[in-house]
Formats: sequence, C-alpha cells, structure tokens
Amino acid sequence: MNLERSVNKAHAEERHGIFMRMYDLIEKKKHGEELTKDEIMAMIKGYVDGSVPDYQMSSMLMAIYFQGMTEEETANLTIAMAHSGDMVDLSGIEGIKVDKHSTGGVGDKTTLVIAPMVAACGGKIAKMSGKGLGHTGGTIDKMEAIPGMRTALTQEEFFSTVNKIGLSVVGQSGNLAPADKKLYALRDVTATVDSIPLISSSIMSKKLAAGSDSILLDVKTGSGAFMRTLDDSIELAKRMVAIGEHAGRRTIAVITDMDIPLGNGIGNSIEVKEAIETLKGHGPKDFTEVCIILATNMLYLSGKGDLDHCRNMVEESIRNGSALSKLAAMVEAQGGDSSVIYDPDKFEKEKYTYEVKSTEEGYVSHMNTEQCGIASMVLGAGRETVDSVLDYSAGIVLKKKTGDLVKVGDTLAVLYASKAELFDKSEEILRNAYTFSSEPVISRPLVLAKVTIDGVEKY
Amino acid sequence: MNLERSVNKAHAEERHGIFMRMYDLIEKKKHGEELTKDEIMAMIKGYVDGSVPDYQMSSMLMAIYFQGMTEEETANLTIAMAHSGDMVDLSGIEGIKVDKHSTGGVGDKTTLVIAPMVAACGGKIAKMSGKGLGHTGGTIDKMEAIPGMRTALTQEEFFSTVNKIGLSVVGQSGNLAPADKKLYALRDVTATVDSIPLISSSIMSKKLAAGSDSILLDVKTGSGAFMRTLDDSIELAKRMVAIGEHAGRRTIAVITDMDIPLGNGIGNSIEVKEAIETLKGHGPKDFTEVCIILATNMLYLSGKGDLDHCRNMVEESIRNGSALSKLAAMVEAQGGDSSVIYDPDKFEKEKYTYEVKSTEEGYVSHMNTEQCGIASMVLGAGRETVDSVLDYSAGIVLKKKTGDLVKVGDTLAVLYASKAELFDKSEEILRNAYTFSSEPVISRPLVLAKVTIDGVEKY
Repeated sequence: MNLERSVNKAHAEERHGIFMRMYDLIEKKKHGEELTKDEIMAMIKGYVDGSVPDYQMSSMLMAIYFQGMTEEETANLTIAMAHSGDMVDLSGIEGIKVDKHSTGGVGDKTTLVIAPMVAACGGKIAKMSGKGLGHTGGTIDKMEAIPGMRTALTQEEFFSTVNKIGLSVVGQSGNLAPADKKLYALRDVTATVDSIPLISSSIMSKKLAAGSDSILLDVKTGSGAFMRTLDDSIELAKRMVAIGEHAGRRTIAVITDMDIPLGNGIGNSIEVKEAIETLKGHGPKDFTEVCIILATNMLYLSGKGDLDHCRNMVEESIRNGSALSKLAAMVEAQGGDSSVIYDPDKFEKEKYTYEVKSTEEGYVSHMNTEQCGIASMVLGAGRETVDSVLDYSAGIVLKKKTGDLVKVGDTLAVLYASKAELFDKSEEILRNAYTFSSEPVISRPLVLAKVTIDGVEKY
Repeated sequence: MNLERSVNKAHAEERHGIFMRMYDLIEKKKHGEELTKDEIMAMIKGYVDGSVPDYQMSSMLMAIYFQGMTEEETANLTIAMAHSGDMVDLSGIEGIKVDKHSTGGVGDKTTLVIAPMVAACGGKIAKMSGKGLGHTGGTIDKMEAIPGMRTALTQEEFFSTVNKIGLSVVGQSGNLAPADKKLYALRDVTATVDSIPLISSSIMSKKLAAGSDSILLDVKTGSGAFMRTLDDSIELAKRMVAIGEHAGRRTIAVITDMDIPLGNGIGNSIEVKEAIETLKGHGPKDFTEVCIILATNMLYLSGKGDLDHCRNMVEESIRNGSALSKLAAMVEAQGGDSSVIYDPDKFEKEKYTYEVKSTEEGYVSHMNTEQCGIASMVLGAGRETVDSVLDYSAGIVLKKKTGDLVKVGDTLAVLYASKAELFDKSEEILRNAYTFSSEPVISRPLVLAKVTIDGVEKY
C-alpha cells in the first residue's frame, strides 16, 4: 500500500536502454531542463523504431507543451525528424534551389503566382506541395484543376523540368520525415498540436528533408490561420527561421494577413483563374502586392541581388509576360493543357451559380476567414475528410470584402456548385462570416511583418 | 504540407465516443479547466475497459501534473477509481471500523504497535496491508517474520477474528481499485508519479475500497519519505483528508518525521521485537510517543471519546499489558506462534553480526533515511525487486541517531545478516548516511502536524 515511491525506484532500476532513458528525458523536460542533441536523437530514433512507446512520447509532448523547448532543442528535434527518412538530394539541379512554405489559408493561390515569377527571373524552384483539408486548400488540388496536369513525376522528370524551365511543383513522394508523420498523428489525438516548438519542428523537418538551399516561409495570421494573433505568428516565424538557419538553410519568414480571404476567389479552378489574371497584371491589387513581396524575397534568397533589384525584376516579369509564360511552360512540361492559361474560359464550367445578396447596409468590418473557407468546402471545393472527392469548378468569388461599403441588395459573393441544393448551407455559413459596422473600417495591410535571423521588422 | 490545424479538425470530426471525448478532456485540463464528475467517471471507465488508450491517459496525467486538480476533482477521481473494482463490505463486523495508512518509511513498525493498542481499548481494526519494496518495509513482511503467522485469511476468518478480538491485519486480496493499479503502472513509466492529486487519489482509492468507516493517515516527511518537505506533506495530507471526508469517511492525518529512521530497528523480526518492547513499555521514548499519538487519534476516530480520554486509555493499555495481549491474540488467531511475543529470544537468530564503529567524532546532525533503508535492504531485509526473497532475521539496529554525541570507536549500528559478505556494501551505504557536526544538534519532534477537515495544527 505504501509503495508509491519505492515501486517507482525499483522498476526504474530494472529498466534498461531507451525505454528507461526516455523516462529520464520526460522527467528532465517536466522540470524545464534542456534536452541535449544526443538525447533528442535517441528519443526520435527510439520512437520511429518502436522502442519508445506512444504513451511515453505523449507524456513528453505534453511536458513540451508546458515547458517549451529552447531554439537549440527545437532545431535538434527538427533535424532528428528530417533525418528519420529520405533526405531529398537536389544537387542534380543547378544553382540555388529556393522553397516556399505557407502555413495555410483560404484563397491562398500564391504558389501559382510567385513560383512562375521567381523562375522567370532566374530562380530555381523544385517544390513539393500538399493537398488541402478542411477549410484550407492545397496547391496540388489547384494544379490538378488544370486539364491533363500531372503532379506525380519521376525524380528524373522533376529534375529535368526544373533544369530546363526553372520550376516544377509536384505532390509529396518518398518517405519524408516519417518521425514527423508518426508524431503528428500522436499529437493529433493527445491535444498536443498547439505548441510552437512542435509546430515549427514539424513544418521545418519536411522542408529540410525536401532539399532546397533556401526557404521562404509565408506565415499566415488571423481568423483563417492556425495562428490567430500576430504575436503568435511572429513567435512561430522566429522559431522556424532559427531552425532553418541552424540547419544551414537561408530562411526568411513573411507574416501575411489571413484575417480576410486572400484575393477574391476561393475554389480550385477559380483560384487558378485568379492566379492567371494576377500574372497578367490584372489581379486584385492587394493580393498582387503580397505576391510581389513574397517573390522578391524568394529571389533575394536565390542570391539574385538586393531586395530593390529583386523587386524590380519581379515587377518586370509581370509587365513583360515572362512570368505567365513560365506558368504555361510548367503546365506543358507536366502534361497539362497550357492553352487554358491563355484562355481561362476553357476551364470546365460550373453548372449552377448563386448570388448572395446583402440584407444589411454598412461597412464590412470583419470576415471570419475560416468560415469563408468552410462555405467553399461545403460547395465541393474542399475536403471535409481525406476521402472527400473535389469538385474543381466549385467555390466562391467574393464581391465585397473587409472595408467595403455595402448597400442592401448588393451582391456579397457569387457561389458556384454542381448541385443547387448545396447553396443553402454555404450561404448561411458565408453570411455569418460577415460582420458589418456603420463606421468606415480601415483594413490592415496584407503583409504585416518580416522575420529574418537578424530580427523582426513590423510593417 | 499546410495541414497542421485542418487535419486535426477533420480527424476530430470523424472521431466519436470516449476516444474523442478524452481528447476534449485533455484539452480542457491542459487549459486549467475543471473536469466534471461525469467526465472523470467516463475517463476512468474508458481507461479500465481499454477504450481510452494509454497514450491519451499519459497525456492527461502530464496535464494534471502541470495544472493540478481541485479538491472536488481529486475526490471524484478517487471515488471513480475506488468503484472500478471490489468495494469491501465490512458491515459483517460490528462497530466503527478504523483503518490506518502510512505513506511509507524506514523502520516503520507502528501498525504492529498501534493496532493492538486500539483494539485493547475497544476499537475495531480490519486492515489490509502491503509488502515492502525498495528502501521501505511492509507490515505484511514483518508479520510473516513471526513463525506460523498467516496473512491470507478467508473473508469469514478475517471478519470473525475482528469480531472476536477487535483486530486482524491481512495481505491485500480481491480486486481493489484496478483503475489505480493500471494508472499507477502508467504513471510509473511516464514520470507522472510525483503529483499530489494523483498520489492522494491513488492512496485514498484503495482505502475507500477497503471499507473502513474512519481513516487515520500517517503522512511521513523527510529524507526517508516520498514527501521530502513538511509543506508538501501537509499539502498531501490536506488533499487526502478532503477526499476521505468527501466520501463520507472520517479522516485525520498526522504528519510524522521520516528524516530519521523510526525507532532503532530496521528489518523484519528486528522490528517485531522492537514493537513488542514498545508494547511492554520499554520501547524508544520518541517512537513510543509517536505510537501513542497515532493510536489516540485512531481511537478518537472510533468514537471512543475526546482526545484526552483516548490518550489515557491508550497509555493504560501499555501499563496493564492489554495491548501486548491483543498482539498475542491476533498472532494466535492467524495461526502464529504467540509464545514469541512473550519471549522474543525465540525468533530465528541471525548467523552473523557486525558492528559499524565510528571513525568520526561529533554530533550526528542528519541521517539520510532512505539510505539507511537501502543499507538494510542490502543485508536481505528488503526487496530490491518484487521477486527478491527476504531474510527475516537480517537488518540493522541503530545505536546512534540524529542528535547523539559520537566518539571515534563508538558503535554507530549493529548489522545482522545470513552472509558475512553482505556487510561491506551495507556498511559503506550506512556510513554515508550519517552526517556529523561539531555543534550540538536539536532534533525535531517526531510528530510535526495534524490535519483534519477543520484545518492544520503544527507542533
């Protein structure tokens, strides 16, 4: 009966190897001490090979949630996870390869705009992207909305495409950071997702494994983002930049607004069309500016000169049409029908459209961006579960956004779907996403801050 | 790639039942919110039936380590664990049954002294005790050092013994608090043992299941105890008293010193002999006083009058020999040779003895009590692992303790063992347990505080 401590000690003495060591590591982290590189390596190796059981790891994850990790620890965790699987070797591609990661948002078609811009200016982008889930879309889904487009290439095709035209975007393949996959699945069921060291190491482990020399991070902030506040977003960005630089990759993070959907379109072919318009110089002004800033920083990370020079090159790539040509070239190289790039009317047409008219008058003071994403998902543009089938033509085109003055009867948004019965639910969600005010509203800039290894610059 | 949050949400929507509910409960506790009675019941039920996996429970345990639990939550957790298995029904025994629990220590033979005292004064004790492990001994081991003594009785034998002579002490049987067993095993490997709500609910769940009406807790404090500081011990005591009273059991906790071994003997038959001496009125003065105070409070909890009256009765039970007779009666009722009680020389003799002589001069300023327990364990008196075989005659008799003045060549302790080669290791450990000072040392009282539902009284 009175064995509390004794049993523990006696058992401890019986245990050996990583199982026992893991016990000590949990104890250490629980008391806020720093884990060494060797300890973190042993922990991740043990977790992947099964000698560290889930129940010890989940206990460790919760201790990390409460005690945090130092920059050094986070970097070591990231590197250990990156090295748990394939480390993609991009040395077969000439020049500095630059990658980009977005923490996910609604209407986020930036990759389709900035990758062609950067390639048009001489940058090299060999990028792996993901599919969407829930309220956020994925670049791969948007690409697959282009008829014939292949996102699964052999390594040879992938390398030769980048060498030839400067860019290729494909789906994730190979065994990248399996430790992260296993850890993420555990965090997902043990309420340990929302820890900045764990989020940053999860994202960066895949980026390090993906092999690029430099990394631009687009950290979203606001109601449609994982990080709801600017401070949290900056914290996450600082951590990720530190990890990247620690691992020898030049890394910059730009904090962009996701308290409002990005651009006007939400949905796969709808967003491809908006990307094309933007590359032609006819995109929404604020979205175009975000793309120019992101592309400028990617080009800077590619060693193409100072920021001013890079910005001039990026702007010129729109004016002279070279960025649009790059997109067309990539579509063609990956088996797609590049004629849709020049004639977006060739995209498959949605069967039904529905206009959501305002019943209120006033200024749009806020948009719950996650709900806008869900309203689009409900129409068939996104996945409710991993098995959901996408309707590429479905989605939303927003006509009024934060800051706009709206009169009763004005169209707030146009909905597109293959089944008319989907509109009711989507309309209800979308209406509730809008908040109105009688006072004029000043919308905040879309680019809020920039984080480099040297510090934080707020705009 | 940018799925951090979305995957989580989508998975969450797919999950159902207790697995999903457990996720929410972890989240709740993580944010420091209070779990309801129903939530705690569902969690414990799910954990016992396997629908809540270890990895979710260990995550919850770590969250509890950091966020704590309210008194209400702790009581509900305890009750849920107690009800996870057999609830012993002692109604077949007449009168108020009083139980006693010690949080474990070195040289702690109090049960063998106070249970006979209380029974001699008319109290009813139907007690289940445990075996020792590591540096702490167990009452059952000490009882089994008495030739012929049985500690496994049928329920009928157990009840009739208590009805006839007022006391019986047996080994734990039945399926008491299986949720605690499973949880304890998990805490033991996930570094979540040292949490006051978890310790108190673990101890009290077994006490509630064991069926007595009133409970006296002997909470040890100091270098030989699980709780090293008085504040922690009082905190644990308050929590356990609150649980007991919440569950309708009158509960009192006495905080006693375990910064020094209790009495002079450590080892099984050595301690039985010291208990007998104490019941005869010839025990160490400080140990005798501890026993009188504990017995007085047990008698008080048995409804035998106010504290002064109870103390008088307890003292009289030593003077008139009725307490010693009760011990002999219990030994006899449980098949043991009661003649050893009156003639302790009949205990099996140890083969070898060894005197540890002091090489230092000065006052004993401190004794590392855990190490004293380990020095005795090494001689064969305790279990290093659950499978260790005990040598009942082995152990230590201390000749010098904290506060004593020692000269070079004085005997610090006498060691007893069946193999002479065990002395070296034990001597080394024991020597290191002593600290000397040139200044006189005032030893603290053995009873440091008392905790009832009305508050804390420090001595």
